[in-house]
Amino acid sequence: MAKIKKRHSAKAGLPPGTLVYLGEEKMQPPRITVIDYDQNTFTEKELSKVQQCFEFKDSPTVSWINIDGIHEVRLVEEIGERFGLHSLVLEDILNTAQRPKLEDFDDHIFIVLKMLTYDEENTTTQAEQVSLVLGRNFVISFQERPGDVFEQIRERIRNAKGRIRKMSSDYLAYSLIDAIVDNYYLILEKCADRIETLEEQLVTEPDEKTLHQIHKLKREFIYLRKSVWPLREVINLLQRSESGLINKSTGIYLRDVYDHTIQIIDTVETLRDMVSGMLDIYLSSISNRMNSVMKVLTIIATIFIPLSFLTGVYGMNFENMPELRLRWTYPVGFWLIIVVVVGLMLVYFRRKKWL
Amino acid sequence: MAKIKKRHSAKAGLPPGTLVYLGEEKMQPPRITVIDYDQNTFTEKELSKVQQCFEFKDSPTVSWINIDGIHEVRLVEEIGERFGLHSLVLEDILNTAQRPKLEDFDDHIFIVLKMLTYDEENTTTQAEQVSLVLGRNFVISFQERPGDVFEQIRERIRNAKGRIRKMSSDYLAYSLIDAIVDNYYLILEKCADRIETLEEQLVTEPDEKTLHQIHKLKREFIYLRKSVWPLREVINLLQRSESGLINKSTGIYLRDVYDHTIQIIDTVETLRDMVSGMLDIYLSSISNRMNSVMKVLTIIATIFIPLSFLTGVYGMNFENMPELRLRWTYPVGFWLIIVVVVGLMLVYFRRKKWL
Amino acid sequence: MAKIKKRHSAKAGLPPGTLVYLGEEKMQPPRITVIDYDQNTFTEKELSKVQQCFEFKDSPTVSWINIDGIHEVRLVEEIGERFGLHSLVLEDILNTAQRPKLEDFDDHIFIVLKMLTYDEENTTTQAEQVSLVLGRNFVISFQERPGDVFEQIRERIRNAKGRIRKMSSDYLAYSLIDAIVDNYYLILEKCADRIETLEEQLVTEPDEKTLHQIHKLKREFIYLRKSVWPLREVINLLQRSESGLINKSTGIYLRDVYDHTIQIIDTVETLRDMVSGMLDIYLSSISNRMNSVMKVLTIIATIFIPLSFLTGVYGMNFENMPELRLRWTYPVGFWLIIVVVVGLMLVYFRRKKWL
Amino acid sequence: MAKIKKRHSAKAGLPPGTLVYLGEEKMQPPRITVIDYDQNTFTEKELSKVQQCFEFKDSPTVSWINIDGIHEVRLVEEIGERFGLHSLVLEDILNTAQRPKLEDFDDHIFIVLKMLTYDEENTTTQAEQVSLVLGRNFVISFQERPGDVFEQIRERIRNAKGRIRKMSSDYLAYSLIDAIVDNYYLILEKCADRIETLEEQLVTEPDEKTLHQIHKLKREFIYLRKSVWPLREVINLLQRSESGLINKSTGIYLRDVYDHTIQIIDTVETLRDMVSGMLDIYLSSISNRMNSVMKVLTIIATIFIPLSFLTGVYGMNFENMPELRLRWTYPVGFWLIIVVVVGLMLVYFRRKKWL
Amino acid sequence: MAKIKKRHSAKAGLPPGTLVYLGEEKMQPPRITVIDYDQNTFTEKELSKVQQCFEFKDSPTVSWINIDGIHEVRLVEEIGERFGLHSLVLEDILNTAQRPKLEDFDDHIFIVLKMLTYDEENTTTQAEQVSLVLGRNFVISFQERPGDVFEQIRERIRNAKGRIRKMSSDYLAYSLIDAIVDNYYLILEKCADRIETLEEQLVTEPDEKTLHQIHKLKREFIYLRKSVWPLREVINLLQRSESGLINKSTGIYLRDVYDHTIQIIDTVETLRDMVSGMLDIYLSSISNRMNSVMKVLTIIATIFIPLSFLTGVYGMNFENMPELRLRWTYPVGFWLIIVVVVGLMLVYFRRKKWL
Repeated sequence: MAKIKKRHSAKAGLPPGTLVYLGEEKMQPPRITVIDYDQNTFTEKELSKVQQCFEFKDSPTVSWINIDGIHEVRLVEEIGERFGLHSLVLEDILNTAQRPKLEDFDDHIFIVLKMLTYDEENTTTQAEQVSLVLGRNFVISFQERPGDVFEQIRERIRNAKGRIRKMSSDYLAYSLIDAIVDNYYLILEKCADRIETLEEQLVTEPDEKTLHQIHKLKREFIYLRKSVWPLREVINLLQRSESGLINKSTGIYLRDVYDHTIQIIDTVETLRDMVSGMLDIYLSSISNRMNSVMKVLTIIATIFIPLSFLTGVYGMNFENMPELRLRWTYPVGFWLIIVVVVGLMLVYFRRKKWL
Repeated sequence: MAKIKKRHSAKAGLPPGTLVYLGEEKMQPPRITVIDYDQNTFTEKELSKVQQCFEFKDSPTVSWINIDGIHEVRLVEEIGERFGLHSLVLEDILNTAQRPKLEDFDDHIFIVLKMLTYDEENTTTQAEQVSLVLGRNFVISFQERPGDVFEQIRERIRNAKGRIRKMSSDYLAYSLIDAIVDNYYLILEKCADRIETLEEQLVTEPDEKTLHQIHKLKREFIYLRKSVWPLREVINLLQRSESGLINKSTGIYLRDVYDHTIQIIDTVETLRDMVSGMLDIYLSSISNRMNSVMKVLTIIATIFIPLSFLTGVYGMNFENMPELRLRWTYPVGFWLIIVVVVGLMLVYFRRKKWL
Repeated sequence: MAKIKKRHSAKAGLPPGTLVYLGEEKMQPPRITVIDYDQNTFTEKELSKVQQCFEFKDSPTVSWINIDGIHEVRLVEEIGERFGLHSLVLEDILNTAQRPKLEDFDDHIFIVLKMLTYDEENTTTQAEQVSLVLGRNFVISFQERPGDVFEQIRERIRNAKGRIRKMSSDYLAYSLIDAIVDNYYLILEKCADRIETLEEQLVTEPDEKTLHQIHKLKREFIYLRKSVWPLREVINLLQRSESGLINKSTGIYLRDVYDHTIQIIDTVETLRDMVSGMLDIYLSSISNRMNSVMKVLTIIATIFIPLSFLTGVYGMNFENMPELRLRWTYPVGFWLIIVVVVGLMLVYFRRKKWL
Repeated sequence: MAKIKKRHSAKAGLPPGTLVYLGEEKMQPPRITVIDYDQNTFTEKELSKVQQCFEFKDSPTVSWINIDGIHEVRLVEEIGERFGLHSLVLEDILNTAQRPKLEDFDDHIFIVLKMLTYDEENTTTQAEQVSLVLGRNFVISFQERPGDVFEQIRERIRNAKGRIRKMSSDYLAYSLIDAIVDNYYLILEKCADRIETLEEQLVTEPDEKTLHQIHKLKREFIYLRKSVWPLREVINLLQRSESGLINKSTGIYLRDVYDHTIQIIDTVETLRDMVSGMLDIYLSSISNRMNSVMKVLTIIATIFIPLSFLTGVYGMNFENMPELRLRWTYPVGFWLIIVVVVGLMLVYFRRKKWL
Repeated sequence: MAKIKKRHSAKAGLPPGTLVYLGEEKMQPPRITVIDYDQNTFTEKELSKVQQCFEFKDSPTVSWINIDGIHEVRLVEEIGERFGLHSLVLEDILNTAQRPKLEDFDDHIFIVLKMLTYDEENTTTQAEQVSLVLGRNFVISFQERPGDVFEQIRERIRNAKGRIRKMSSDYLAYSLIDAIVDNYYLILEKCADRIETLEEQLVTEPDEKTLHQIHKLKREFIYLRKSVWPLREVINLLQRSESGLINKSTGIYLRDVYDHTIQIIDTVETLRDMVSGMLDIYLSSISNRMNSVMKVLTIIATIFIPLSFLTGVYGMNFENMPELRLRWTYPVGFWLIIVVVVGLMLVYFRRKKWL
């Protein structure tokens, strides 16, 4: 929710295209790395100045420029100017509360995605916005902070594994998207794990903590859905891009990642259904326990209240109570009545299935 | 709800196009201001007579005529006549219960929007209808009362900040819409704040007041949705307007504000989901508390009712009760039974997880 | 519901086009009135014979023939024959359980609408079916009974107010539809009033009567929706009619009434949401009251049951109970214990927020 | 449900087009009747051999061949062969768990419908599958058992009533569909009756039987919906059939029956909504009754438990209890306290609106 | 759920097209069988080496190559290479968590389906992924493990029963799909059986086990829906395939299986509705039982608490209690009061319908 809160208030009313960083505060300086390759050559370096990356714009090799940290507005602005990005695109890059979207320009495609990572410590899902600019011979990726799910892609490029070194920039963009989408499966697995644990708790000993965990999970699914649903449209638009940047041979890979997206949406909906079902079970288990509490009370009260009345009767101080004087009324008669009454009650309760 | 109530009864049956003000009563006289500008010139003045604004109709500079207060029907009518607005358009301007809509005429575009502002004092959202008429070189904006979210746009025009002074009237109209839409974020942030507060209350001490606040929030979202959903369609229509009033270069800005609208709708739906979830939690916390109340009652009753029976037994006045005469039955036997029974009960309750 | 019940059983199995009146029994004879006008002339008369209205079919002036009471099948049949209406159209006119619909013929358009009026006495909404036949120079309107919402239109025609006298028959048809739609606002205002009253009851003293009123309102909305939803489609079809009967200048008025319909649907849905919300509040207020009842019981029982046990103990007749003989046990010790126990209990209850 | 259960297990794995009867067991032999007519001639006869009906295939008169009982697979097969029906069509005829559907062949149209009849005795709705084959000059109707809703159509043909004798086979097919659809109104009326009865029960004395009847009704609506919803599509397809079998003049009748279908769907949804509303009322009336039970218990307990404590106090056997010895404590003091306590309690309960 | 859990973690980050088996561990070696036939010839054999099946690729006869067990990645890869399958297709075959889908290539169609089988022992539904590759003269089917629902198809081919031997490979593919779809009916019948059993339990003696079975059933329907809904689209795509592999004569069979799919979806939704209804009944039966428990408690307490008060009164030790000394107060007066009070209470309870 903090996401919703901290955002736009700082920005409302500024002219469109004004660049303001709308993410969390970050102190570390941004880090720029470039991986430049074609089938035969390969260079990887970290740049200290943003100007160093401009040379890669028109080089015939595929260049992947990655920026970790977008809180230095000036840096983003310079890249934007040099690579010909619209000021609204730059605004979107800086506004980390974007929903996934794609914008198709003549000479580049702009894509916003949500990269989800699972934080084991706090058992929560962390979201980070990744903006991709796909140009003729380059891909620029903007990330909020260091650390991403692209390490294996870098490995593949370094070692010329798979077909990535033979393909052009659109395949690189696809690979990045694919890595992000693949990672959603991990999140879903974690969620499925937590659902399983919760279900066991539901059967054994549900308490208010269970309820709050169900609720927390439900809320995470709300967020997950928000990240995943628009993704479908994004990939769909990418497939049908008219910019000429997407080669036909990449089409089948995009269809594949599209299928994955559908599958993830499907799974999210299924898990959501499961969580809803758990809420029903939780509520009816509360009712059931209330029922059993009430039964205990009723059984005890129903047995002893009449008996107490009886003891009350013979505790009265009337002078003329002949029963009190008979020898066997207490040791035999009284206890016999008690036993019979209790017996009848028990039979009654058993017939009512309360015992 | 007052909105729904006070409205149309005054109007039903009148011929279409009859101009009747359907808003709240207002005593202040309307206020007309004009901002007239192009890249080089800039004029801003407040007009005392409505006729003074007619000259701006055909001037080549961009003119923004703003009317605060639409309860003087004659004023609206005169503007309508002079600027060639259809009588139904005028009717829509005066009827402040319109839903957001756009109508595309040959030489002007008519847009109705809802400007929401947050009233800190009463913690409620205030709605005001803003009607825009976008012509070739002018924008007329009708507001219900003074005070709006356009102050920063005025500043930008005055100081020639951003690109607004270089653009034509469609960009001005876009800027006004953008300002209204941006302000929705503020409303949503306030709502998110209130949800957060309510959630804390839910965990610590939910009472009926919490329920009523949840309900109030729910109702505000109903209203918010009504304001935001049609907006999407409005901006969509504006993008695809065939009037020739929308320049191609404004298109990308409209797409941007369209994206914002989608994002706001998304957030409204998310917050609504959260509020619904809170209701579930509230209801089950009531059940839980009932449960714990019942448990206390049952524990007390189940322990003491049988014991009371025992005291009842030895309070009876039978003459032949040998136990009463033994020396240690009371100080040892009786209290031993009490302790054993209580102990067994406690073990039983602990096993049932009631303690 | 009577609507659903009394209807079609009488009709099932008859050949299509068989004319049977399917409304409530009516004893009054039907009443036929004609208003005939153009820009310069105006005639209004009540006809005693149906044949008298045939002359208006081909007159160049606009003729509005209104029939109050459609239970005389023969009358409807004669009009149908003379004005060239299909037998299925006549069947639809007589069957007062139609849903709003429009049928486009070559030389006339047939429209079915629901006219709702609010019955103050019984606080219920009354529905009456109005069938319109729009021809080149005439409009025929069939109503179930006298009394309608068209009086102000008649006034306007009589007094040549507004543009109605200058326009042709399509504008008259539009005016009738507009009057019916405008009247829905009144119904909605009444509903909103009732919702407001109910909400106050909900906060102060909800009882089963409140529930039944919520339920009644809910049911009225079901009916209202059924009347309003298809209306949208009807007006949409009317706008796009290919019969050539709708002049272009009427188009904008139809768009206006279309907007009203959308707004009414919107409001109906909003009010429905509110009523649903009220049901939630009602249910949770029942739970809350149960909770408070249980708390009272539990507090009383939890305080007094242990104390009663104590009195039971000292009411026992054991011979060896040394406490009974000490001088201060009763006036000091006993009451001290009572006070301490009660005090602890009260502290406990306050800590649990039950007091 | 039996429908779902008994079916496909017998069939799974057989080659497509294998004819197996999938309905209930029937012992009566099938019955074949033919009605053959044009404007001037009319023949009606019962056939003993299936071969007798083949001659009607190419006769220029309209022939309606009706088969009651489809459990003799061979019979259906022979008709199929002779009239050129695809083996999958025959399979569909025999499989009585079909949903309503239409298949358009070059020279015939195949339609499956559900004929519902109301069984007064068991207050349940009976469904029977009717398959129609509409050819150039013939209609073949397959029914599961004798008894149908077509008797009035036969009468009309016999007596040349209405326009049926003048029309061709498509009008006959329409008439059969119309008869089936008209009959749905009867079913709905019965359901509406039952809803009304249930509603009265809900107000006066709801018990578990009411709940089970609500549930039964709900389930019937599930089935009804399944029968009616696809019908809309069927009639729609029939209207737009490209086989050339549907004359233009029949179009308006089909549109009429289409409207009826929409109206039935509408009514089914409305009644479903009502039944759902009843469930809400039932559940909250249970809660209300629980509430009133609890109140009685609480009032009794709250009044008498403190009083019993008091009697307990003065039933104790302490030697030093000076109150016991005073003359007026019992007849005056004690009873005064009792009256005062009871009085205060009653005031308290009245203030809480429990009495 | 295990399905969701074990999957993609192993895979995330690998280059697309990397073949990793994502199913359960399997130790048995895969088994390859080939059935090769045309109208006149028929061969069936089990292959020991995968290379043996390559010869069937271009043979003019229809070849059905079936692989049971896909955990040997190398095997799948070799088939893929030889039959020209895309590496993403191979990936999909190995990933057994696919949703049903169809991909249309120039010279082959790739289909993924879910084969459901009912496990009588554990009363659960088992899912197995079946991937089909339909080529010009061959069909390759990949299954997760031995055992399938195709045995009757094999019989039909062996015995030249039905038209299968006369048709080409598309008909074989259709037959396999049809067999899988037909088997869904069996699953639904089992579910319907279980629903029926549960409903009886609901009426007689619902307990928490019933709830858990309802929940289990609900969850199976979630899974069933996921398998069936995309199937509709798959068959739809197959019907409209542009590969030229689907002969026109097979079209009607596909339409038939399409209808079955719709019917199955319909039934799944109906059964889901039923299960939801059962949950409502379960919940209200819990409430009802709570109600009856409370009534018993209240009746007992309401009768005996006042009586106990009375015995308490006459158990007090006041010296001046004249009633105690009268001769008939106890045997007559006291018991009379008891009888009268109990009688009045019983009348009251009967009037309140509690007895």
